[in-house]
Amino acid sequence: MARVNRQILLRKRPVGVPVAEDFEAAEAAVGTPGPGEVLLKNLYLSIDPAIRGWMSNARSYLPPIEIGAPIRSGTLSQIEVSNDDAWPEGQLVQALAAWESYSVVPSSSLHGRVRPIEGIPLPSMLSVLGGNGLTAYFGLLEVGRPEAGQTVLVSAAAGGVGSIVGQIARIHGCRAVGLTGSDDKCAWLVNELGYDAAINYKSADLRNALKESCPDGIDIFFDSVGGEILDVALTRLNRHGRVVLCGAISQINATERPPGPSNYLQLLAKSARMEGFTTLDFAGRYDQAREQLARWIFSGELRYRDEIVEGLEQAPLHLLRLFSGEHRGKLMVKLADPEG
Amino acid sequence: MARVNRQILLRKRPVGVPVAEDFEAAEAAVGTPGPGEVLLKNLYLSIDPAIRGWMSNARSYLPPIEIGAPIRSGTLSQIEVSNDDAWPEGQLVQALAAWESYSVVPSSSLHGRVRPIEGIPLPSMLSVLGGNGLTAYFGLLEVGRPEAGQTVLVSAAAGGVGSIVGQIARIHGCRAVGLTGSDDKCAWLVNELGYDAAINYKSADLRNALKESCPDGIDIFFDSVGGEILDVALTRLNRHGRVVLCGAISQINATERPPGPSNYLQLLAKSARMEGFTTLDFAGRYDQAREQLARWIFSGELRYRDEIVEGLEQAPLHLLRLFSGEHRGKLMVKLADPEG
Repeated sequence: MARVNRQILLRKRPVGVPVAEDFEAAEAAVGTPGPGEVLLKNLYLSIDPAIRGWMSNARSYLPPIEIGAPIRSGTLSQIEVSNDDAWPEGQLVQALAAWESYSVVPSSSLHGRVRPIEGIPLPSMLSVLGGNGLTAYFGLLEVGRPEAGQTVLVSAAAGGVGSIVGQIARIHGCRAVGLTGSDDKCAWLVNELGYDAAINYKSADLRNALKESCPDGIDIFFDSVGGEILDVALTRLNRHGRVVLCGAISQINATERPPGPSNYLQLLAKSARMEGFTTLDFAGRYDQAREQLARWIFSGELRYRDEIVEGLEQAPLHLLRLFSGEHRGKLMVKLADPEG
Repeated sequence: MARVNRQILLRKRPVGVPVAEDFEAAEAAVGTPGPGEVLLKNLYLSIDPAIRGWMSNARSYLPPIEIGAPIRSGTLSQIEVSNDDAWPEGQLVQALAAWESYSVVPSSSLHGRVRPIEGIPLPSMLSVLGGNGLTAYFGLLEVGRPEAGQTVLVSAAAGGVGSIVGQIARIHGCRAVGLTGSDDKCAWLVNELGYDAAINYKSADLRNALKESCPDGIDIFFDSVGGEILDVALTRLNRHGRVVLCGAISQINATERPPGPSNYLQLLAKSARMEGFTTLDFAGRYDQAREQLARWIFSGELRYRDEIVEGLEQAPLHLLRLFSGEHRGKLMVKLADPEG
């Protein structure tokens, strides 16, 4: 059965924001898994800022994507052929695979079984109950450690992670203030997600807007943006404040090494801390977090939004939406429905 | 009794490194304490980088020193007249006073009673058993949280704080590596203080030297320097590493806002944290820390060095030694012996 594996390859490394010419559509034969490997049918692609990082030739926790290789991506996939008894055929999994119809990966690169929950759409297992939800949950609660009455500032607040962080902050009795890039998204944060205030960082005077929206200062800054926003927020940080580092999307397309936060000595003046994390730091507690997130969804306390487009060929455009700042919530590409 | 109060005043705000012309000697009448105030006879002046900060017109945790006012300084003083029953006359105290023979201060600005310890020179109550020792102790143990076998890198390692940090790290079973500015001081760190390795950051290729001296990476970087040293150290930080922010002496004389650590996203990649502190965060535990430090001194595990010059007029020059990097250990100026 010579099935075709449709792929999107890295044609060349982007300079700055990726453009269509950096990608290339291709077809290949579907691979055959070797010992310890599995053949995945990819159902949904998770469109994340990390992908842009892997497209660069920079050292990271993973090697760069090779030129001519399919674009590496988180996926929700179904195991079609398994050479590892621990991973049965038909199982739905979260995987680190690629922008292609089928992937052969070592079973060690599978991030976990996906157990669909009645009443929650399957792709949401990749967003609010996947990496985004876990990142928001552990980052805010375990790294940020919010206390009732404190102020939590969130950058990229309308994104897949940020839109969840503010709501968890509210559930914990905090004031949630979001930074995002349009008045529409500001309204969405406040009216739909329950943020106490939102700032359009593109049109506002950031310094004054933070003063107004965070009259008692900032106790936690959950930052996925970096750059000037981080620098300004540092000046408003309270004593024993926490900066939770989740990313730096403002810098991810930079062509030169961007400057660091020149106000970092505020950490000294305020006995404050800036801390990075990955969800892997909490790998033993994913199920517990997912259960809590699901309870909040069913109680109506936690809302989320998935922006899903269909068709592999949409993946590059969808990735660019991450950087144009037009999206709300989590971006995914649907390739297929599960079988069985 | 019209006694004379000799003073060193701030004549003008320094631009960059302070020069002699920024200071001015003067004489005034000894003040009379009002309600809730005490008259201090200053015995020792503590020469600290913070003084340079207060000479600038920059907002800080304390207001700038006013032009024409005596230079603010930590002191070891004796209460000569007290209008606060809680603070008896004759009591030795650590105070926030000034470069002058006598100071009138509110009793609320007294940092604590000084109880001399048999076998330890009185001025050491201001260094190894004073702010420096407490800063090293709480910063390393409470913020850095060292574990046996880990690598602790210390900048300004021959200074009043750094010279103690490395030794406490060794006592806790860590590898201690010091950064300092001369080969002589490197030898002192290794041969006298027991540092495992020392790097002359002025002559070494910092990147390679760190690779050699910290073959297993850096678990804790205790940083009082900032600037390029911090940026390079961040690249060698281990997973779950800690940067303990104690100061940024490389930037304290800067005439422009210095750049931030452009490698700060290493904190994200390594699930690491950067955290500031002051000893005030641990104010209830000073006695416990002092007792432990004294035990280490008496057991020979903790060595220290005080560089003491005599005479108020020496204070400006002694302050400049902080920045020329020639000193070892703690700088103090002796004004008088205690009475009674």
